[in-house]
Amino acid sequence: MSTLQGTRIGFIGTGIMGAPMCGHLMDAGCVATIHNRTRSKAEPLLARGAAWADTPRAVAQGADVVFTILGFPKDVREVYFGADGVLAGLGKDCIAVDMTTTSPSLSVEIAAAARKQGSWAVDGPVSGGDIGAQKGTLSIMVGGDDEPVGRVRPFLETMGAHIEHLGVAGAGQHTKMCNQIVIAGSMIGMCESMLYAARTGLDRAAILAAITAGTARCRSLEAVAPRILKEDFTPGFMVDHFIKDMGIALDESRRMGLDLPGLALVERLYRVASKLGHGRDGTHSLFLALQEILVER
Amino acid sequence: MSTLQGTRIGFIGTGIMGAPMCGHLMDAGCVATIHNRTRSKAEPLLARGAAWADTPRAVAQGADVVFTILGFPKDVREVYFGADGVLAGLGKDCIAVDMTTTSPSLSVEIAAAARKQGSWAVDGPVSGGDIGAQKGTLSIMVGGDDEPVGRVRPFLETMGAHIEHLGVAGAGQHTKMCNQIVIAGSMIGMCESMLYAARTGLDRAAILAAITAGTARCRSLEAVAPRILKEDFTPGFMVDHFIKDMGIALDESRRMGLDLPGLALVERLYRVASKLGHGRDGTHSLFLALQEILVER
Repeated sequence: MSTLQGTRIGFIGTGIMGAPMCGHLMDAGCVATIHNRTRSKAEPLLARGAAWADTPRAVAQGADVVFTILGFPKDVREVYFGADGVLAGLGKDCIAVDMTTTSPSLSVEIAAAARKQGSWAVDGPVSGGDIGAQKGTLSIMVGGDDEPVGRVRPFLETMGAHIEHLGVAGAGQHTKMCNQIVIAGSMIGMCESMLYAARTGLDRAAILAAITAGTARCRSLEAVAPRILKEDFTPGFMVDHFIKDMGIALDESRRMGLDLPGLALVERLYRVASKLGHGRDGTHSLFLALQEILVER
Repeated sequence: MSTLQGTRIGFIGTGIMGAPMCGHLMDAGCVATIHNRTRSKAEPLLARGAAWADTPRAVAQGADVVFTILGFPKDVREVYFGADGVLAGLGKDCIAVDMTTTSPSLSVEIAAAARKQGSWAVDGPVSGGDIGAQKGTLSIMVGGDDEPVGRVRPFLETMGAHIEHLGVAGAGQHTKMCNQIVIAGSMIGMCESMLYAARTGLDRAAILAAITAGTARCRSLEAVAPRILKEDFTPGFMVDHFIKDMGIALDESRRMGLDLPGLALVERLYRVASKLGHGRDGTHSLFLALQEILVER
């Protein structure tokens, strides 16, 4: 029997990522109380036995550990600090784990506020996308004090294959920023490469096969580029969420006295993609935006 | 016994890549005549039984297939079109294979000149680096007519694990450009990420482990970034050669009416790295250049 059997947890944000993640916790025997902005998206979990709560505060009341995975930093701020927020309901010695990709500074702020009232907060953003969430193979980047991180590790292990504790509050978010900076480079490289390939008039699938076999191999080539060739731009990961992540990374960089010209360029090009109507498409729709603005007719 | 046993080949350019590649051909039973700008670098192959020739023309005379892997497009032009060049010596129906990464337009020009004199030329640039050359696991991107490509395939198979025929002359080079455009994005993303990581003050090895486990995984993270952490900037692949490749890709892009802002930025930053003295260091010394110009003290 799982050591988590019967543990009372809360889960806020049961979307594409959150729903399967919460499902893994329930599979491990956790008793879940959940909340989501759009209730309909929570229905499959409610049908499996989760309890509904009307507010983040109500979710936190009576839960030993509360997990959140939301959209933007302003959502996180509202869900934690609002009058009906998590912190208002979180009990002494209980732990909140924010798995949203958000600002390291905000994670530090939440952890300090939690500590002040005798509870704990940990940041644990993830990498691995919807497929990783479904399979429970996410990479989870954790920041926080040793005690709460040690206590939440068994929960995180139900959702992820790689749990790395990087340091104090905010360290998980900083690590996720490092991850997104790599992805930004990888996406511009892949999209410009596919644009060049298209312009040569050669067989793009053959080109893709050849370069994927060499040192350029990466997930952008293996899993994302084939979807460009199929003209399938539905999101694995959405343009507007990526813009949010890159904006945070740029803000934090400036705060640390660091200029990142590659990241700044990619963020600007993604904002163009969003303006052109691709905000809710997959991040590979950067290809369409570049094609529209960079190719001579 | 290998079907290549006793075949007379020529090999020009026996450096870090060429020496092991020529070695694989000799292992397969080819009888090699070789030439290199710096003769001392050819000594190990000569000691194994290769014959020396003083000019590319002399290499080509009496060889069924000539392989070249050189530095810059001007070297390729000289080695092929010079008075003592490959084309002056290449016999009727014999084949020259240029494995240098060079301009697609130059490959087209060489193939046309070869055809005019009744011989053949094929382009076959590679990906996989010195390790791939040593292990015979290169990815080889081939452009040329079906007949000569079919005839050289058994030779290429001694050097590479993935041989992809992409189209007519120049198609191999175009594909290599697609490869280098991806690498350019990957390198700026990885270097900026490691710069951000350094600035946080967190454990960079732990950050690298965490992000390599997720969707950012790529060769730049797995094989190159660890060398930044060890402060080992010896070249696998040299900055000045990468600048050459990116310059070709930018030229060809413009010729095709295509603007590639990511590639243009990365090329510019690498030129800064070269100016700062890293021209003969590994491509990951971009990290050092960015650190010097982008971090506030």
